[in-house]
Amino acid sequence: MNATIRPARRLESYVCGQWTPGAKEGQPLLDASTGELVAHIDSSGLNFAEVLEFGRSVASPKLRAMSFHERAAMLKALGLKLMEQKEEFYTESLRTGATRSDGWVDIEGGIGTMLTFASKGRRELPNTRVLVDGDVEPLSKDNSFSAQHILTPLQGVAVHINAFNFPVWGMLEKIAPTLLAGVPCVVKPASQTAYLTELVVRRIIETGILPEGALQLICGSVGDLLDHVTGQDAVTFTGSAWTGQKLKQHPAIIQNSVRFTMEADSLNSSILGPDAVPGTPEFDLFVKEVAREMTAKAGQKCTAIRRVIAPRALTEALVAAIGERLAKTAVGLPGDEGTRMGPLASMDQRDEVRQRIRDLQADAEIVAGDPDAVNVASGDAEKGAFLNPVLLYCDKPFAATAVHDVEAFGPVSTVMPYDSLDEAVELSRKGKGSLVSSLFTDDPKVAEEVVLGIAPYHGRVLIGNRASAKTSTGHGSPLAGLVHGGPGRAGGGEEMGGMRGVKHYMQRTAVQGTPRLLSAVTGRWIEGADATQGEHPFRKSLAELKIGDQLVTAKRTITLEDVEHFAHFTGDTFYAHMDSEAAKANPFFDDRVAHGYLIASFAAGLFVEPNPGPVLANFGVDHLRFLTPVYFGDTLQVRLTCKEINPRATAEHGEVRWDCQVTNQDGAVVAQYDVLTMVAKSWPPAA
Amino acid sequence: MNATIRPARRLESYVCGQWTPGAKEGQPLLDASTGELVAHIDSSGLNFAEVLEFGRSVASPKLRAMSFHERAAMLKALGLKLMEQKEEFYTESLRTGATRSDGWVDIEGGIGTMLTFASKGRRELPNTRVLVDGDVEPLSKDNSFSAQHILTPLQGVAVHINAFNFPVWGMLEKIAPTLLAGVPCVVKPASQTAYLTELVVRRIIETGILPEGALQLICGSVGDLLDHVTGQDAVTFTGSAWTGQKLKQHPAIIQNSVRFTMEADSLNSSILGPDAVPGTPEFDLFVKEVAREMTAKAGQKCTAIRRVIAPRALTEALVAAIGERLAKTAVGLPGDEGTRMGPLASMDQRDEVRQRIRDLQADAEIVAGDPDAVNVASGDAEKGAFLNPVLLYCDKPFAATAVHDVEAFGPVSTVMPYDSLDEAVELSRKGKGSLVSSLFTDDPKVAEEVVLGIAPYHGRVLIGNRASAKTSTGHGSPLAGLVHGGPGRAGGGEEMGGMRGVKHYMQRTAVQGTPRLLSAVTGRWIEGADATQGEHPFRKSLAELKIGDQLVTAKRTITLEDVEHFAHFTGDTFYAHMDSEAAKANPFFDDRVAHGYLIASFAAGLFVEPNPGPVLANFGVDHLRFLTPVYFGDTLQVRLTCKEINPRATAEHGEVRWDCQVTNQDGAVVAQYDVLTMVAKSWPPAA
Repeated sequence: MNATIRPARRLESYVCGQWTPGAKEGQPLLDASTGELVAHIDSSGLNFAEVLEFGRSVASPKLRAMSFHERAAMLKALGLKLMEQKEEFYTESLRTGATRSDGWVDIEGGIGTMLTFASKGRRELPNTRVLVDGDVEPLSKDNSFSAQHILTPLQGVAVHINAFNFPVWGMLEKIAPTLLAGVPCVVKPASQTAYLTELVVRRIIETGILPEGALQLICGSVGDLLDHVTGQDAVTFTGSAWTGQKLKQHPAIIQNSVRFTMEADSLNSSILGPDAVPGTPEFDLFVKEVAREMTAKAGQKCTAIRRVIAPRALTEALVAAIGERLAKTAVGLPGDEGTRMGPLASMDQRDEVRQRIRDLQADAEIVAGDPDAVNVASGDAEKGAFLNPVLLYCDKPFAATAVHDVEAFGPVSTVMPYDSLDEAVELSRKGKGSLVSSLFTDDPKVAEEVVLGIAPYHGRVLIGNRASAKTSTGHGSPLAGLVHGGPGRAGGGEEMGGMRGVKHYMQRTAVQGTPRLLSAVTGRWIEGADATQGEHPFRKSLAELKIGDQLVTAKRTITLEDVEHFAHFTGDTFYAHMDSEAAKANPFFDDRVAHGYLIASFAAGLFVEPNPGPVLANFGVDHLRFLTPVYFGDTLQVRLTCKEINPRATAEHGEVRWDCQVTNQDGAVVAQYDVLTMVAKSWPPAA
Repeated sequence: MNATIRPARRLESYVCGQWTPGAKEGQPLLDASTGELVAHIDSSGLNFAEVLEFGRSVASPKLRAMSFHERAAMLKALGLKLMEQKEEFYTESLRTGATRSDGWVDIEGGIGTMLTFASKGRRELPNTRVLVDGDVEPLSKDNSFSAQHILTPLQGVAVHINAFNFPVWGMLEKIAPTLLAGVPCVVKPASQTAYLTELVVRRIIETGILPEGALQLICGSVGDLLDHVTGQDAVTFTGSAWTGQKLKQHPAIIQNSVRFTMEADSLNSSILGPDAVPGTPEFDLFVKEVAREMTAKAGQKCTAIRRVIAPRALTEALVAAIGERLAKTAVGLPGDEGTRMGPLASMDQRDEVRQRIRDLQADAEIVAGDPDAVNVASGDAEKGAFLNPVLLYCDKPFAATAVHDVEAFGPVSTVMPYDSLDEAVELSRKGKGSLVSSLFTDDPKVAEEVVLGIAPYHGRVLIGNRASAKTSTGHGSPLAGLVHGGPGRAGGGEEMGGMRGVKHYMQRTAVQGTPRLLSAVTGRWIEGADATQGEHPFRKSLAELKIGDQLVTAKRTITLEDVEHFAHFTGDTFYAHMDSEAAKANPFFDDRVAHGYLIASFAAGLFVEPNPGPVLANFGVDHLRFLTPVYFGDTLQVRLTCKEINPRATAEHGEVRWDCQVTNQDGAVVAQYDVLTMVAKSWPPAA
C-alpha cells in the first residue's frame, strides 16, 4: 500500500449527468490503519428533488424500453469491464482496513454478484419487457374471461442507502437486480468508506454502458432527498437498526407507502450439533467457521456469528479450540502478506466495540483476547483501529439479556451452552430474528429438527458437515441466488434471492379480461385468444411467426394393434395397457388404455412438418398432463398454437413455446402440454 | 327486517377461549336506516398481551402441526357450515344498510372466498407442513452443496384490523389464507358494523372446527395490543389511509420489523376507450359499470370507481347516460324489494361524504344528483343515512387537484375528459396508486397501451368488452385468486392472490447444505441426496415407499432401425431424425438423432414394472428437457428416484413424483424430467 496510494481528494457526487462537488469541503475520511487523510466528503448544495426527477424522467423510460435480456447483457458487459479494473479497487480497499481476502469478498464478490444476475436474467427471464407471474386464472367456464398477473417495472427510482463495511458489494448487489428490473438507482454509500464506492462509480460511468441517469451517486448526506420519494420509488437501507427505523418512519415514506427494505445487523447464531463432538470433522469445521466469521473483515459483517450455541459438555473443548485459533490470528496492516486480520474501519468503531464488550460482560466473561491490550504484527496500534479478537462465555444464557441484545460490530462472539435441542432452538430464536444461522451436524434428524425450528426466525440457514466441507460457501456469505435479509431484528427485508430480487422493483398487477385482449397485453397466447390458421407454423422463421399461429392436425385412431405394437417395441408392457382385467380393477380406467407416451408420440407425428425448415429442434416439454384415458378406437387430433416467442440476443435462433392440446372424438382434452422448440430467426438461414 | 330482528345487545370479545364483555357498556351502534340501537361495543378491561400470547402458545403449535391439506379441509368444513347459516347473517346485514345484493358480496362472497382458499389449498399446495419455494439451487459442481428456499409458518399471530363496509368478507378473506398458512388470527372489526362480525364469529366458534385460539375477536378498541407485537406476528389494516399510516408507525411495529399490510381506499379510475363510442356494447357496459360501482354498497367500497376518464368528445353523452341510470336508482330501506341502494353506514358517514363533495366542487361541477336533497322510495330520510348518487364533471383535470386527492366514500364519482391515450394514462396515474382501474375497449392496441401504462400504479386492472360482458366479474370485485391491494395511496399492500396470500404469513428461508441433509429438512429427494436401491419401487404402496427409493434400469441401445421404425409408426419423420445432410446443417446436431419422444418411450419401457401393483397411472410429466443429442448406437440407461410423496386426504391413493434421468454410455444426461404417478396407499388395496 505504498507506491500506488492516491493523494487525499475531495469526493464528488454523480448526479443529473455530472460529477458535482459539495458546496463545502466537508468531513475528513481517514485511513483505518494509519489515520492518514484519504478524502473529504460533502453533498451540501445538491438539489435532491432534481436527482430523483432526473432518474425518473431521463433514465427510467430508457431502461423500461429495454428487454430483460438487453438489461442482462448490459450488466454482463459492465461486470466484465469492472473485473478488468479490480486491482485498482483492491488498492483503494486497503485504506478501509480490508485485507486482500476481505477485499475479495467485497470487490470480486460484488462484481460476481452482478455477473450472476446477468446470467440468471438471461437464463431465467424471458426476452420481454413484461413478466408474467403465475398461471392464467380462468374466471369463466366458457373461456371468455380470464386473468393473468403481470409484473412491470416501477416508474420511479430506487434509493440505496448502504453500510460502510462492503463499499463495492453493497452497491453492486443492489443495483444489479434493480437495473435488471428496469429501474434507475441512486446510491448513497456510508461516508466512512465512500471513497472506494466513488472510485467504482467513476469507472462504471466511464464505460458508458449504462444509460445516463441509470446510476447516480451521492457522496455525503442525502439531505432532504427522502422528502421527495413517491409510491413509484423504492428505498433500501443497510446498516444499524436505529438509523433504519428512523428512515422507515420518514413522513414521505409512510404517506406514499414507499417500498422500504431494511437489512440490519443481527445477532446471528451458529449451533454445534450434539453429534459433532471433538474428533469429528463437524467439530473442527465449526471451530474454523466461528474463528473465520469473527476475524473476516475484522468481524464487521452483518452476517457474522455473534452467538455460538453448543452442547454444554462440549463448551470447554470448544472455547479452548476457538481460543487457540484466535490467538494465532495475526492482526496488522491489511496490505502485509502475513496479516490475517486488519483494523476496524475507524477509531470511533473501535471505541464503540470496546463499549459493547463491556455491555456483554454483564452476562458473560471474556475467555480469549483482551479488548484493551492491542497486539499487532505490523502497523501502529495507536494510529490504526486495531483490535484483537475477543471470545466470551455466558454460562446461563436463558437468564441473560445482553448476549441476545447487544451487538459488538467487530471480532467478538459469545459461546453459550444448551442442554437439549429444544434449548438450542430457543437460544437461536432469542436473537429475535437474524439474517442467518448455521448448524454443524451430520445427523439428518438433528438437521430437520433444528432447521425447521429456527427457519421462521431466519432469512438463511446453513448446514455444515463433512460432505460439504470443501464446497460450502460458508455461514457469512450472502449469495446472489439466495435471499439475503431476515425477520425481526434483521429488519424484515429481503434482497437478492435470484430473480425474486428483480421483482422487488416491479409492481404485480392482476389483469382481467377476455383472452384476446389479455393476450395483447402480455404478448403471450392464452387459451381463448384469437388464433390464425394458414401455412404450417413450422415453416415460419421467427421473422414470420406470430403469437396465435395455429395448426389443427389430421386425425388418427388408436387401435389395439398400435398399443400392443408400441408396448412390445418400447418394452412398456405396464398392466393398464395390456391386461383388461387389471385395467378395469384400477380406479382410473374402464379398460385397457393407450400409453401416455404413445399419445405424445402420435401427436408429434400429427403436428410435425418433416422437411428441413426453420424449426431446429424440440428441446423439451413442460407441464404435460394426461386428462382423459384413451381407449382403443378413440380418434385423436392435435391443436398446436404458438404461445410465446423468445428470440435470443446472441444467437441466430430463439425459443418458441407451443400450446399443444390433444383431443378425442368427443372433443375431450386427453393431453395438454407445452412443446418447446428452437426456431431460426430467418429461413433459409442468413449466410 | 321486522320479525326476526334481534333486540339490542352488548357485543362481546372472544379471547383466550372465552366470550368476554368489556368492562363498560360502551359506544352505541345504530341501524343505518332507522337510527335504532343495535348494540353497544366495548373492549375495556381485556388483557391484550394475553390475547396475543394465547394465540401464540395455544393455537399456533396446533395449526403448525397440521398439513396444508388438513388446514384446507378445516376451511372447507367451516365454509360449508357458514353457508348453511347465511340467512341469519343476511338479516343482521340489513342493519348495516346493505341490500340483499350488497349482503351477497359480503356474506356469500366472503364464505365463497374461504371455500376458494380451501379448494386452491388442496389443489395447489402439497400435503406437507413445509413449502418449498423455487428450484434447488446447485452451489457446487460435484453436488455436495446446494440450497433450497423453504417457507414455514410464522410462529406468532396475525392481527387483522378491518373496515366497516364488509364485516363478513373483510374478516374471511383475511383469515382464510392466514389459517391455511398455519397462523392464528386476532380479528378487530370496525365498530360501526361489528355486530355482524361478532355474530359470524359466534357461529364459527360454535362449530368447534377451529382449534382453540385460532380465531380470537376483539369488539371495540385494540387498546395496547400493538405494544405487544413481535417480529413473528403480522398486522393487516383495511380502512382510511390516515389511521393506517398511524398504525404503521407504531413503535413496536417499527422496532420489531412487524409485517404490516395496508389496504387503503384509493381514487380508482375507469377509462373509456376511444373506440367505445355511443352505440358500441363497450359504451353501454361502461355506463352500467360506473353506475353500478357508484351505487353498490352505496358507493362505500374501497374499489369503487371515483374517477371516470373518457374521451372529451364522448363526455356529454356519457354524463347523460350515467345520469339517467342514477336517476332511476331507487334509494330506500335495504330490506325492501324495490330498493336498489340502501343508506350509508351512519349519519356521520353521510355528513362526511357531503363535506367531501363540497371539496370536490372546487374542481368540478355537479351534473347529476343533489347531495342535500334526499329522495327516498322508502324509509325516513331524517332517521336513516340516505343519500342519492352524485355525479360530478371536471373539465380541466390536469389543472385540478381535489378530484385526484379527495375521496367521498359514498355514491359519488367525477367524470373527466382526455384528449389522447397518453392523457388517459396520465390521469389514471394521478390517483398516485390505486387498488384497481378498469378500461372499456374492444381494441387490442388500446388495451396494450393503456394497461401497460397504468399497471405499475395498480394492483388490479380489468378490461371490459363485449366478449366478456356476461362473464366479467366486474371492476369492483376482488377475487380470491387475484391480488388485492395497490401501491402508493392504496397502501402498498397485497392480499389474497391465491396461494401468494398464504405466503404472506410464512417466512422464506434459504437453506444451504449437503443434499442429504437438505433432503431431510424439506422431505423431498434432491439430486445428490442418499438413494436406496432394492425392490422395484413400483412394487411399493405409499405405506412402503420412501423418499429416495431408486431404480437404476438395464441399458438399451438405440439403433438406426429403432428410429426409422418409430418415425414411420408415429408419422414423426422430422428431418433431424431422417435426413443426415439436413441434420448436419442444423446448429445443434452432428448427424441424425433419435426422437425425444422415442427416448422418453424407451425410458418408460426400461423403468416400468409391468405387473398389476400399487402404481395406478402415469398422469403427467413435468419439466422435460432433452440435454444431449442421442445418435444411433448410443446406449441409454434410466435412473428413477422417488422425489416427493403426496398422499391425498380423501382418497385411497396419492401423487408420487419421480426424478427421471436418462444417461448415455458416456454418463452424459440426455433427458431429465419428473414423472408423475398415482400410487395406492396400500397394496393389495384395502377391501
